Amino acid sequence: MTTNERPFDLLNKSVGQRVFIRLKNNVNIRGRMSSFDAHMNVVLEEAEELDGSELKTKLGTILLRGGNIIFVSPA
Amino acid sequence: MTTNERPFDLLNKSVGQRVFIRLKNNVNIRGRMSSFDAHMNVVLEEAEELDGSELKTKLGTILLRGGNIIFVSPA
Amino acid sequence: MTTNERPFDLLNKSVGQRVFIRLKNNVNIRGRMSSFDAHMNVVLEEAEELDGSELKTKLGTILLRGGNIIFVSPA
Amino acid sequence: MTTNERPFDLLNKSVGQRVFIRLKNNVNIRGRMSSFDAHMNVVLEEAEELDGSELKTKLGTILLRGGNIIFVSPA
Amino acid sequence: MTTNERPFDLLNKSVGQRVFIRLKNNVNIRGRMSSFDAHMNVVLEEAEELDGSELKTKLGTILLRGGNIIFVSPA
Amino acid sequence: MTTNERPFDLLNKSVGQRVFIRLKNNVNIRGRMSSFDAHMNVVLEEAEELDGSELKTKLGTILLRGGNIIFVSPA
Amino acid sequence: MTTNERPFDLLNKSVGQRVFIRLKNNVNIRGRMSSFDAHMNVVLEEAEELDGSELKTKLGTILLRGGNIIFVSPA
Repeated sequence: MTTNERPFDLLNKSVGQRVFIRLKNNVNIRGRMSSFDAHMNVVLEEAEELDGSELKTKLGTILLRGGNIIFVSPA
Repeated sequence: MTTNERPFDLLNKSVGQRVFIRLKNNVNIRGRMSSFDAHMNVVLEEAEELDGSELKTKLGTILLRGGNIIFVSPA
Repeated sequence: MTTNERPFDLLNKSVGQRVFIRLKNNVNIRGRMSSFDAHMNVVLEEAEELDGSELKTKLGTILLRGGNIIFVSPA
Repeated sequence: MTTNERPFDLLNKSVGQRVFIRLKNNVNIRGRMSSFDAHMNVVLEEAEELDGSELKTKLGTILLRGGNIIFVSPA
Repeated sequence: MTTNERPFDLLNKSVGQRVFIRLKNNVNIRGRMSSFDAHMNVVLEEAEELDGSELKTKLGTILLRGGNIIFVSPA
Repeated sequence: MTTNERPFDLLNKSVGQRVFIRLKNNVNIRGRMSSFDAHMNVVLEEAEELDGSELKTKLGTILLRGGNIIFVSPA
Repeated sequence: MTTNERPFDLLNKSVGQRVFIRLKNNVNIRGRMSSFDAHMNVVLEEAEELDGSELKTKLGTILLRGGNIIFVSPA
């Protein structure tokens, strides 16, 4: 079975939406994705660092390097 | 002996199917693969993080970066 | 939903402004960004290494390699 | 002394044969290699994770990312 | 706001000058930079390895691989 | 002083000869090198994993990924 | 201030000379460099692994992968 969908379609559909991102150092980040590029660099607005599912630190707007990401999920 | 099969054929046949993925940080993920690309980035639906073979966390739809993957297996 | 914004637009808007940068070794750096390039290498002026949100060491002007960055945030 | 043999010839001769693979995280995997590509990504059938030389877990068919491999050996 | 400055301008201005370099393994190096290239490889003369800000070892002239660098700062 | 020799000449001269290889995980391997490529991937025959200079495990023929190698030495 | 010197000039001048090399795993190696390439792969003759500045192991001729190097210094 083949498909014409590609993984980055999920990022494209998530622009303007809230996402949950797990990083390699086991940090979890939540925020509203305003843009992304081919390296999976993303800009999040109202970003928050989480401890489990609890808010740990408000980060504001951040540009996150794609290389640190394990997965991105629509929140 | 040569073959015309290539490793990514296994991904192609797994689109729409359930897969089991082991990550470098020893996390195991299970879900239904809806797409993949040449970097082995994959989108999983109804993804679950496992503790051994037990459900640990429901993750929903995720875009998983290929660079974190050790192996992918049809579930 | 698509957008014409790209993640590096955030860097472009931050030139001359104060930014907060988290590095992979969990060091936090603060300073005024005077330039950046496509590898996310950045020059910061009046850079400070932080311990939590407290000043730990004054670093002066630094050229920070992009590969060490987890995220950049307008301060 | 020169040779016309190349390292990947060993992979080519191993298609359809059982191989032993040591991974970077010190996991050992055994299985029948059905395909490989230029990144040393390999598909193994009837793959087994080993504890020393003892069977630890049956993995079935897996697509193993080449970047995790230390060495591949005909079993 | 845009700028025509690029991060490597700081390296260019530092040729012949003393610089402080922090490496990924938390080693600090000080010396006079005599050349650099696009990979941020640098040659330092009268290089010294520091323990905090104290001299630990005199290294003489060294060619330092750019990939080990966290940041470079005019001393 | 310049030279026309290149580091891979040492590999070329070692084809058919016994070599000692130190890997990044501090494992030492010894064997007869039958081929190599531009990534420093090598095939060793009668390969042995060493504990210090003592035989630890006979590995037979192996294809070793170049990225794991610290150094190769004619034995 | 600009210069026409490039960091690899130091390697070029060191061909046939003794060099000291620090590796990422904190191993120090000393030997006479007979060749190098653009990846900073180097061949050392009469190479010695050091414990501090003391001889630990005689390695003979080695081909050292550039990616493991922190710095190279004329001895």
